[in-house]
Amino acid sequence: LEVGNESGSEFVIGVDLGGTKILAGVIDPTGGVLSRAKKKTRSERGVEAVIDRIARTVRRAVEKAELDFDRVERLGIGAPGALDAATGVVAEAPNLDWKDVPLKKLLEKHLGIPVTVENDVNAGTWGEYRLGAGVGVRDLVGIFVGTGIGGGLVLDGRLYRGSQGKAGEIGHIKIASSGPRCGCGQVGCFEALAGRLAIQRMFKEAGKKGKESSVLRAVEGDVSKIRSGAIAEGYTSGDKLTGKILDEVILRLADGIAGAVALLNPEMIVLGGGVIEALPDEFFEDLLDKVGRRAFEPSLEGLQIKRAVLGDDAVLLGAACIAREQ
Amino acid sequence: LEVGNESGSEFVIGVDLGGTKILAGVIDPTGGVLSRAKKKTRSERGVEAVIDRIARTVRRAVEKAELDFDRVERLGIGAPGALDAATGVVAEAPNLDWKDVPLKKLLEKHLGIPVTVENDVNAGTWGEYRLGAGVGVRDLVGIFVGTGIGGGLVLDGRLYRGSQGKAGEIGHIKIASSGPRCGCGQVGCFEALAGRLAIQRMFKEAGKKGKESSVLRAVEGDVSKIRSGAIAEGYTSGDKLTGKILDEVILRLADGIAGAVALLNPEMIVLGGGVIEALPDEFFEDLLDKVGRRAFEPSLEGLQIKRAVLGDDAVLLGAACIAREQ
Repeated sequence: LEVGNESGSEFVIGVDLGGTKILAGVIDPTGGVLSRAKKKTRSERGVEAVIDRIARTVRRAVEKAELDFDRVERLGIGAPGALDAATGVVAEAPNLDWKDVPLKKLLEKHLGIPVTVENDVNAGTWGEYRLGAGVGVRDLVGIFVGTGIGGGLVLDGRLYRGSQGKAGEIGHIKIASSGPRCGCGQVGCFEALAGRLAIQRMFKEAGKKGKESSVLRAVEGDVSKIRSGAIAEGYTSGDKLTGKILDEVILRLADGIAGAVALLNPEMIVLGGGVIEALPDEFFEDLLDKVGRRAFEPSLEGLQIKRAVLGDDAVLLGAACIAREQ
Repeated sequence: LEVGNESGSEFVIGVDLGGTKILAGVIDPTGGVLSRAKKKTRSERGVEAVIDRIARTVRRAVEKAELDFDRVERLGIGAPGALDAATGVVAEAPNLDWKDVPLKKLLEKHLGIPVTVENDVNAGTWGEYRLGAGVGVRDLVGIFVGTGIGGGLVLDGRLYRGSQGKAGEIGHIKIASSGPRCGCGQVGCFEALAGRLAIQRMFKEAGKKGKESSVLRAVEGDVSKIRSGAIAEGYTSGDKLTGKILDEVILRLADGIAGAVALLNPEMIVLGGGVIEALPDEFFEDLLDKVGRRAFEPSLEGLQIKRAVLGDDAVLLGAACIAREQ
């Protein structure tokens, strides 16, 4: 699988910078991951410490690949929050407690190779487009359901970032005029109704009403401990409350997806993120069925909805591809 | 104002083909409308008759411009419904009762000049982008509130049509999980909650409950006769029911606009269509205020929301620009 239009002999580093961990990989000229390294982010230690940890994670990955660092031509990094891909400055990343951090400049100084910075959800979407579920299509919407819901847009074969680099915030389209308040301060947001925090809230409310559930028992009522795996386990084992909550979530997911389908008429929707990855095919097929019943019918023609396939490698692979294609 | 990148000496015809009327204009090299002509569509007489009427409307406009037909280099036409801009075939246009009509081919045969076919809402959006409210921006969403709600997308300076030519159907994003049934068969669609048919339905329901209104009295209870002008009149004159209905409509409009803002992060939203055009600035400012309060805050930075300025010329001007830029 050839990545980008650059020379096919380059080794590139991809990095996924998250709020809790840094994941780095060495990507070979065919898009394969030669090696991976991982460290905790420890953002509480400050920007310089995190930059140093990124650099060390990168060097560790290169060592593991048994590659001379000179063979590495460039690095792409996916970072959370609002950033300017052109300048490589992270304007605001609440997960890292960062404001106006010149990530590109700092990393280039540390590592001595060109660095490309991209929003992590955009990078993950681009990874799926180049090397994952979306190979061969030109119009793709990536939707990642985790704590919240993020999205990325590939339109006419290009990553679409919007006028201020904030396009793809599908978690904040409105699918209801009222409901629980979203982290962004609004009500009716897609992610406030269908993300993992929303699912946890639904468990909490049911618990208050005295509803029984193996999922609630396992966390002793502390719904913040309900991870995607526990939700999937409740679903698979036939826990009634989990089934009821996910029936509601599926409808909300279908409505959010329907919005992207109507507005953008993509060829493909790629669904990923912890919640989607954890849940079994039965859930996914039910979701496809609901999208088919609830979305604008003319725009369903020719639409494919697929699971993301790159898992934890999506962001680093996408960032590496973007770096190579610069 | 220079249109497109072609030679600046071309005269181009723009046509707006609607369900009830055909509007043709001769566009001079600076984007000015030299002359206009209008005829009823009379789609009930069949495809060939409509094609003939379009050709006659075009020739009439050229005559009125006192131009030799040989000076006209090309024609762009905006047509309703689902169509393939590349082939110029209208796949389905319920307003015209058309199916698989090779509009480009038929018109080229009749007129002997190259014809470009575009969806009418896309053409109107492109017109505002090239010659109207959106001159100078690169990312623009056009939203037109009439009987229903249509939309068009200019992304990175290009008209974005989606994978099957159906992008921009903002009227069918879901802003609620229930509500009145939309013409498309779904519930919760933006246009079913905020378009003119939705407004008429709200008047009807209020009338059934015995609510008093100057708007209802004027149409003797037949809400299908409530046009945009009557809604504006009720609003301006302080009719209480109209005010109450429009307060609700403004919230729904704000939520639909908020969806486009979150997903696409455009630089500009252009609002047009009969309902928006008829209502006074007070309404528009209230709408802007509600968008500011209800949309995803980070994406509001740098966002402009403007009224469309081309009115009835938007579609023919946009179609002419697209034809010239082909």
